Parts: sequence; structure tokens; C-alpha cells
Amino acid sequence: MYRTHTCGELRKLHIGKVVTLSGWVKAKRDKGYLVFIDLRDRYGVTQLAFNRNNNSGLTDQAVQLGREYVVQATGKVIERSSVNPDLPTGDIEILVSELNVLNRSKTPPFTLDDETDGGEELRMRYRYLDLRRDKMRKNLEIRHRLAIEARKYLDDIHFLEVETPYLIKSTPEGARDFVVPSRMNPGQFYALPQSPQTFKQLLMVSGFDRYYQIVKCFRDEDLRADRQPEFTQLDCEMAFADQEDILQTFEGLARHLFKTLLNHDVPEFRRMTYDDAMRLYGSDKPDLRFGMPIADLKEAVSGAGFKVFDAAELVAGICVTGASGLSRKEIDQLISWVKRPQIGANGIVYCKCNADGTFKSSVDKFYDQNALKKWAEACDAQPGDLILVMAGELHKTRKQMGELRLEVADRQGWRDPQQFACLWVVDFPLLEWNDDHQRWHAMHHPFTSPKTEDIAFMDTDPGKVRANAYDMVINGAEIGGGSIRIHDKEMQHRMLKLLGFSASQAEEQFGFLMNAFEYGAPPHGGAAFGFDRWVAIFAGQYDIKDFIAFPKNNAGRDVMIDAPAFIDQEQRDELFPDNKAPATTPPHP
Amino acid sequence: MYRTHTCGELRKLHIGKVVTLSGWVKAKRDKGYLVFIDLRDRYGVTQLAFNRNNNSGLTDQAVQLGREYVVQATGKVIERSSVNPDLPTGDIEILVSELNVLNRSKTPPFTLDDETDGGEELRMRYRYLDLRRDKMRKNLEIRHRLAIEARKYLDDIHFLEVETPYLIKSTPEGARDFVVPSRMNPGQFYALPQSPQTFKQLLMVSGFDRYYQIVKCFRDEDLRADRQPEFTQLDCEMAFADQEDILQTFEGLARHLFKTLLNHDVPEFRRMTYDDAMRLYGSDKPDLRFGMPIADLKEAVSGAGFKVFDAAELVAGICVTGASGLSRKEIDQLISWVKRPQIGANGIVYCKCNADGTFKSSVDKFYDQNALKKWAEACDAQPGDLILVMAGELHKTRKQMGELRLEVADRQGWRDPQQFACLWVVDFPLLEWNDDHQRWHAMHHPFTSPKTEDIAFMDTDPGKVRANAYDMVINGAEIGGGSIRIHDKEMQHRMLKLLGFSASQAEEQFGFLMNAFEYGAPPHGGAAFGFDRWVAIFAGQYDIKDFIAFPKNNAGRDVMIDAPAFIDQEQRDELFPDNKAPATTPPHP
Repeated sequence: MYRTHTCGELRKLHIGKVVTLSGWVKAKRDKGYLVFIDLRDRYGVTQLAFNRNNNSGLTDQAVQLGREYVVQATGKVIERSSVNPDLPTGDIEILVSELNVLNRSKTPPFTLDDETDGGEELRMRYRYLDLRRDKMRKNLEIRHRLAIEARKYLDDIHFLEVETPYLIKSTPEGARDFVVPSRMNPGQFYALPQSPQTFKQLLMVSGFDRYYQIVKCFRDEDLRADRQPEFTQLDCEMAFADQEDILQTFEGLARHLFKTLLNHDVPEFRRMTYDDAMRLYGSDKPDLRFGMPIADLKEAVSGAGFKVFDAAELVAGICVTGASGLSRKEIDQLISWVKRPQIGANGIVYCKCNADGTFKSSVDKFYDQNALKKWAEACDAQPGDLILVMAGELHKTRKQMGELRLEVADRQGWRDPQQFACLWVVDFPLLEWNDDHQRWHAMHHPFTSPKTEDIAFMDTDPGKVRANAYDMVINGAEIGGGSIRIHDKEMQHRMLKLLGFSASQAEEQFGFLMNAFEYGAPPHGGAAFGFDRWVAIFAGQYDIKDFIAFPKNNAGRDVMIDAPAFIDQEQRDELFPDNKAPATTPPHP
Repeated sequence: MYRTHTCGELRKLHIGKVVTLSGWVKAKRDKGYLVFIDLRDRYGVTQLAFNRNNNSGLTDQAVQLGREYVVQATGKVIERSSVNPDLPTGDIEILVSELNVLNRSKTPPFTLDDETDGGEELRMRYRYLDLRRDKMRKNLEIRHRLAIEARKYLDDIHFLEVETPYLIKSTPEGARDFVVPSRMNPGQFYALPQSPQTFKQLLMVSGFDRYYQIVKCFRDEDLRADRQPEFTQLDCEMAFADQEDILQTFEGLARHLFKTLLNHDVPEFRRMTYDDAMRLYGSDKPDLRFGMPIADLKEAVSGAGFKVFDAAELVAGICVTGASGLSRKEIDQLISWVKRPQIGANGIVYCKCNADGTFKSSVDKFYDQNALKKWAEACDAQPGDLILVMAGELHKTRKQMGELRLEVADRQGWRDPQQFACLWVVDFPLLEWNDDHQRWHAMHHPFTSPKTEDIAFMDTDPGKVRANAYDMVINGAEIGGGSIRIHDKEMQHRMLKLLGFSASQAEEQFGFLMNAFEYGAPPHGGAAFGFDRWVAIFAGQYDIKDFIAFPKNNAGRDVMIDAPAFIDQEQRDELFPDNKAPATTPPHP
């Protein structure tokens, strides 16, 4: 037996007991005739004491121990002479009588503290050491607890966790698939799932009316900083459920998680249509921890002879509460920020609402105090506030205002990660026009149903069709989303046709699903949540890599194990026997 | 809202309430002025009643409903005139006042009863219908409950579920990997994990001293009837744990599952060394629901002039209790059975222990009553029993006896799936000689530690080295297994060398792990359990396909979605840009 207790367990009540602990040497203090070791494991830190007067050989041994050595120590629990109130075990220490080095350690290449001196690349290479840091350990612990509580909530209301397959079929719709060559079927490939979408729908056809799964999904995308080629989804589906049932169910889930993990009572989620979100916040995932909605100033600014505004499709303003004192330099910084190519705006017009009720704008030449008062009214600005205005094409300007709104909030410190603003964005468009491909794409996915009252527009004005689709948004991040699905073969055909599938493509890719719809498919819908991001937000953090035990770097590479890698000759020859890339169509017999 | 209650919920206490149910038409009975529909969902069956005198239009509608139509019905809960005691809802029925067809259904291609008329291929093609059968639904429900209870047990004793990556690096050791070409790193591949072995060991190095995961694993094997290319493992690892800690922990898990799922109290697991298991049962996974150990008859049969026995390395017998009455035909069937190439034995010598204390053997020419009495003593046979004897080379004969023992038990009805015999087989050999490759293979895997007292044999007699390895066996099936791992770089190097790895191969494949061992790796070990099989055994069944929602067929194909399949030209060109199979070594710069 390696230990009788963990390093986080011993208290005053254990004084006098002989115990055995195992753990890592976190720190060592040599006081001459007394030597102290902080012994660390996952559960805490306990002080080991060695007394030279007592046992000088053992104390010499202790002095030899290096950082991160793995040791087993046996001794009596004694009261500490100087209590450490910061440590749960701070009342006691172990007077060691037996010491056993279980393994030695080289000096770690970076410090294992919360604020480490290791850069990301180094920490990724030595991930097994990085994970020893308290911060990383806590991240994985909160992830585990989130999974436990999510499962508990869903199990309690009769959701069934069902595992769906990982070796499935490639579908050209959506992001790029990772594929897996089949040795047993030369030239053919499995694909790794981007989500279990069609399988969970089939489970609804099977009568499993409440399904969930915490499941890995895969997307071969050109990676961005916050994307991983493999990521985890909490995937759910319900039959005989309308949109309201689904929103209630998963709002309940979020509430349960906030309560059990953070002891945080979340008020009822706001609901906002996609159109309102875009109009008021320039984003389909508005951060509502602060106000600053976008005001339409078109009417207020018109007719003053300022051509930029008069020519613009949209003149939009936000009111930054209490920011009339911003310096010229600070405002110039914001203007430079929106001019960067990532935002691409021409600039910002501002108007300070002075404390004395007067106004000072960057376009005083065109607008007098009365005119600026109209701006303030349109923005609901009070004395002391700052109005920021941008103008241009409708959709572009809304998005730019949305970005500016977030940037201003960041600079003002209004995006407190310990505060949570949750909402549902509903009534998404069914389709969006893709200029590159010159065709409609599904905004959510091809299985999302149109709103009944908008079906007529599918033929006449597809862009106008709203979907039974919804996103859960927390603090400006899309945590998850879903839709009521199509469960009728004819409608699914119509949708695929609208997306540019030929009848034979539709049949080849999704024939199994449309066949299933002919055998008593119930109405159904669901949602999927980005588990990695959800955990990060719960922990008040942003980088999902810090919540994944062994993430890939931004180039999709695991630098610890050095994958991907070249494969063996033998392995290659089995997969590609004729030394050629596989064909794309079945060879003729 | 589609329903106020499920089809399994209504009881007498609901009488008088107006309710809405949704579900599938399971059966229809047209009694003229009365029409009854059995409405089914996942939770049960409720009878809908239509009264022509009451509402003839609605009753006409009901008559039109086909099997597996999806309907929503509203009506009053009334007492049944003829109670159905077989149905939990059998006291009531719904007098329907409103009926809504939610979807129609074609006639299913096979009946959806427990005993279906659909063959396996057809059921796999229409898996979404097959899963509607009660039996299949219950199988997935028990799987879900097993996962819940396993997690509960492990969570309670501080195991942390950590997700390990699916896109890892191919290792030539062990079974064949599935690989995934990397578009971003042309010519390179990820591999899908055969198990999270190295990652869970790294988690131990990270200080997560108790890890588990219910996780998909992948093996590109030439498939057998009971194998799937993707399968689920309950994977566990513990640090600062010796073999005894691990056996206790997972015996506790099994006990918890038997108790909570089957209300079955399992006695303490037997422990048996690998050597004893092979000697007594001719198998490293003996079925102990019945006795019939293999007795060594060499001494008892020697010197009687029967050359077959005298020349044999082993003469082994089993005593079939109460089977002296087996007919000549039945014994001949057994003899034919062992002569099949799958077993490959030459035949069986038998000896009936008659009720009157006399013996009748098939070799009476060589053995008189006194000699046969010695056989009976060696086998512990009583009057009324039957002794079956085979002879030949030691290991081969043991295995053949082991197979015969199982076959006899099957024929005697001694393998009751509702009865459970659990044991640990321990002290497995570290290595086994592979004749094809003319080298030692790891019996468990290359990370398994040798027993300290046997390390000296690694250089002199590797086949003699026992490992700290163990298997959990239930009813003759290996449910899981594991080992205490190597946690020392030098020992890991030595092991890999013994397995034929060159220093550079060892470094390339497992360098990251051996590096990790240099930074304070704790002693650790673990186990992994075949989740699919474990569920099947709990349900008293054998075919793991019946416990996987969407399994592959025996050719590794998903016949429902038709995967694997050929891929798109565009997709192929991205992965294999020069139309050639990828290289196996990095191109020189």
C-alpha cells in the first residue's frame, strides 16, 4: 500500500496517528537541523518534517530530494509549531520516520505554478507537466463536474445516452470531413463525424424520444486560434417536442449547471429574434452583460448637409455610459481600431454629452446643439455619456458597430467573466447566400425545418424563409444551438434541392434518412452544445485549449506525441496497394 | 405541446382527466362500433378507444390508421371494461375525442416484435426500425444504466473522467491502426486510438491519480463475428496503487453493477493464476459456473500398453457429472465435434462410471476395472458420471480439453446466462513467442511491468517472466484486464528492446512517454473493460451487435448508411494532391 491518506486530507483530529503519504516534492526548506518538504498530490499539500536531532540519516536523505521527486513518507501526524492558515492541512505536519524515493525527476523545463514561465509551445510539448499546475488540474476537474451534472440533469428527465458511430460516411455539405481509408474495402473511406446529426435523428425515428451524448466531433478546417480539429459536443435530441419544449429543457440544463457548479441563480433567459439581435447588437450572439444597443440615427442626422451620413444606408450609434471624459487619444485609438482590416470601417464620428448638458461632436460643423440633442435622444444618452457613430452599408455597418460595442465594453471593463448574461436567439434565417458557390447554403444545416408560415417563400424568396432554429448565447459566445428538424421526406427533398443537391446526390448522401422518414418519423428537434467552450465560460476563461487535456496546437498538431506523422511502408502498402491515390468512383466490374 | 403524458404513465388515478398522448400505432382492433388502437412509445402502450355511436367520423379515421403511423390523440381517461393485467396501463383506456396523424408509415419490412421475422442483414439496413423492438430498446437502456452506475461508483471514489484525443499517432505494435490522412500536413497521418493507453499513463504522470473514461477505441482487424472495428471501453488508471488496490477497486465496481442493475450479490471473486487456469481449465478465461476441471491422468493411464496414452505428453480427463447415461450417438457427436479443424483433436476416449460401481470404457482392451477405477479417482468421478479423455501435446491438449469442457457444459445446459461466476486471472506471462515474426510479443502490451522477482529472467529466459497483469473473467468471457505499468525509463527501454524495437524506433514511437518517466512518474496501473461485452453479459446475452445502436456488419460495413464509400474528386485531390499514395518517409528538403 502506497498511502494511507492523500496530501489534502489530514487535520488536527489525525494528530498522533502514524500515516503514509505519497506525492511530489513541491518545495523544500532546509533550516539546518530541521528540513521541511511540501508534499503535493491532486488533493492538496502536506508538510513533511525531518528533524536532524531525531534522525540525521533520514534528514540527509530529505535534503537530497529534488523538485518533483516522487516520494512515499511514513510518520506521525503532529501539531505544527507555526500554523499555515492558507493550507487546509496547515494545522499539522508529518514527523517522518521512513522515506522512500519512488521515482526521481529531472528539473522541469518550466515552473509548475499558476503563473508559469513556460510559453505555450513548451507547455504543450510537456503537457504532462503543464497538467500538474493547480490551474490546469482545476480546469479538468470543473470539466468533469460539468459532465457529471449535465448527465445528472438529463438522466433525471429520461434522456438516454446512446453512443453513435465514429466511422461513418463523408458528406460534402458543411465543413471538410476527416476521412479514414478502409483496408477491407480498397479505395473506399469512412469519415469521422462532424456531429452525430443524422444518427440522433434516426434514434428519434426509432422511438428513443430523448437522446443525449457527450461526444467527440471532427472538422478538418483551416484552424483558427480557438478551434480544434477534434472537439466535444453535448448533443441532444427530443421527439414529440416543439421549440418551446426544447428551449425550456435546455434553459433548465444551463440553470442547473450554473446552480450546482457556481451556486449562481440565473434569471429567465431573454429571447431575441435573429433580426433584433442583428439590428440592436450587430451580432447573432450579443453579449448582454452590458447595454449599449445600436441606435438608428438616420432620421436624427439627416438633412444637415453632412454627405457621409446622408449617403449612408445606415447611420448607427451607441451610447457609452459615463464615457464623455474619454481623451482625444483614447478616441483616436478606437478609430484606429475600427479602421484595421479585420473591422474595415472608415472611422468613427463621436459626440460627447457633457455634464453641463452641452454637446461636443467631431462634426460640429454640420450639427448644432439642437441637432446633437436629437442624436442624444435617439441613443438615450444622458449628460456624461459618449455617443459613437458609424455609417455605411446596412449589414456591414451593423457588424462593425457590433464589434466596436464589444471593444468599448472590453476597454471599459464591462465584460466581467464572473457575471453571466444568457439568452436565446431565435428565428434564424433558413438559408444564406454563398457568393463563392453562387447558391444557397443552409444557415444551420440541411435538416432544419422552415417556419410553416414561411414555406411559401421557399420558391419565391428563399432568403426570407425563417427557420425553427435557435442558439443559446452566454456572454457573447454561442454556447450551442439547434432546430426543429424536417421529418417529412418531401420537405427534406425540397430543402436539399434548394441547396443544390441533384436528386441522385440527395439519394446517395441522405437516402437512408429520407427512407427512415417514410416509416413513421415523429416530429423532433434538438440542440448541441460546444462542451469545451461551455466549460471555459463557466470557469471565466476564454482559451478552450486550457480545458482540453491533450489539445492540438493551432496547426492541428499534437506536439507532445508528434502527430500526425508518416506511416510505415507495410501499413501504406496495405491501404494503397497499387501505390496510387484511391479512385473516386467504383471501378467497373 | 405534443403530449401531456407518455404511453406508459396513465393509471386508475388518472380516470376522468383529459390527456394527450403521442406515439406509434402498434395494433388496431376493429370491433364494428368500437375500434381500439394500441399506442406505443418508449415508455409503454396505452389503449385508445373510439366509439362509433359517440363519434363516427373519428372512428372512421381510426380505422384508416396503419401500423407504425405516428399519431397524437386527445381524450378522457376512462376505466376499461376488460382490464389487461399484463399491461401497467391495463386498467384504463383513452376515449379519444381528437385525433391527429403526425406522420404516416409504410409497412415495415419485418415485424417489430421481440421474435422478429427479419434476418440480420435486413434488420441492420433498417436499424432505425429494429431499434423500435422492445428487446433492442431494453438493450440500449441497460447499456445506459450500466454507464450511469459505473460512472457513479467511480465518481464517488474520486476517479476523474478525462477525455483523451482521437487523432493520435500510429504505433506498429499490436493490432492494425485505422489512419486519417492530414490535409494540413501532406503525406502524414493521424491514427485512431486502439486504446488511450499512453495518454492515461501520462495523466498519471500529471498527478491525476484516478482516471477513467468511457471511450471509443478502434482496431482495423480482419473481423470475426463478435468483433467490431469500433468498440467501447471503460478505461481506468490509478497512481500510487498496487495490484491489490486495483483488483479491489474494480471488483468493487463489478459488485456495484451487479447489485444496482440486477440486484445480484456477487461473492468475493476467486483468484487464479494463469498457470492454474490453463492447467485446470485449458483457458485463460475459465467459465466457473460449473466445475469439470481438467484432471491429469498421465499416471493413472500409464503402463497399460495403450500407445496413444503412453506416447502423449499429456493425458487429460474431465468428469461430466451425471452423464454416464449419454448414448453412443451423443458421445460420437462430441467426438466429431472435437475432430473439426477448429478444435483439431484426434478423438475422445470415454469411460462411463456406471451406477452399480462398474466402469465401461472405449479402451476396455487395455484397461480393466481396477485401472479404470484409478481414472475415476484421478477425476474425482462418482457412479453415474462420465469421464472424457484426450491425449497429446501439453498445451494443445489443454486447449482442446478447455473447448470440450465448454461444449459439454453447453449441451448439458450448465451455462445459465442468469448465473454469474466472476474471477481474477493473475500472473500472466509477460511475453509470448510469435512464430510468424520469430520474436517475443507482449502478452498484454509493451507497458506492462514484469514481476520484480522475475526481472532476472528477462535476459536469460524471457518466456518465464511473469507480469503484474490480470484479467477479470465473467462466465468464461474476458470482461477486462490490466496491469501494473512500467514507470521507469530504463525498464521501458529494456522491454521495448526485448520486443525487437531498435533504440531509434523506441524513441520515435514512445519517446514522449519515456521522457515523461524522467519527470517524476509515480507507480501506476490500471484496467480496461470491454463495455459492449460487459453489457451483453449483464443482459444474459452474447451478440454485442445487439447492444450497439448502429453496429457494423461482419465485413466492417454500415449497411444502413452504406459506409465506407468512395469520396469526392475534390476531397481526394486535397488529400492526395499528386495523385500518388503518400510517401512513408519525409521528403528531403
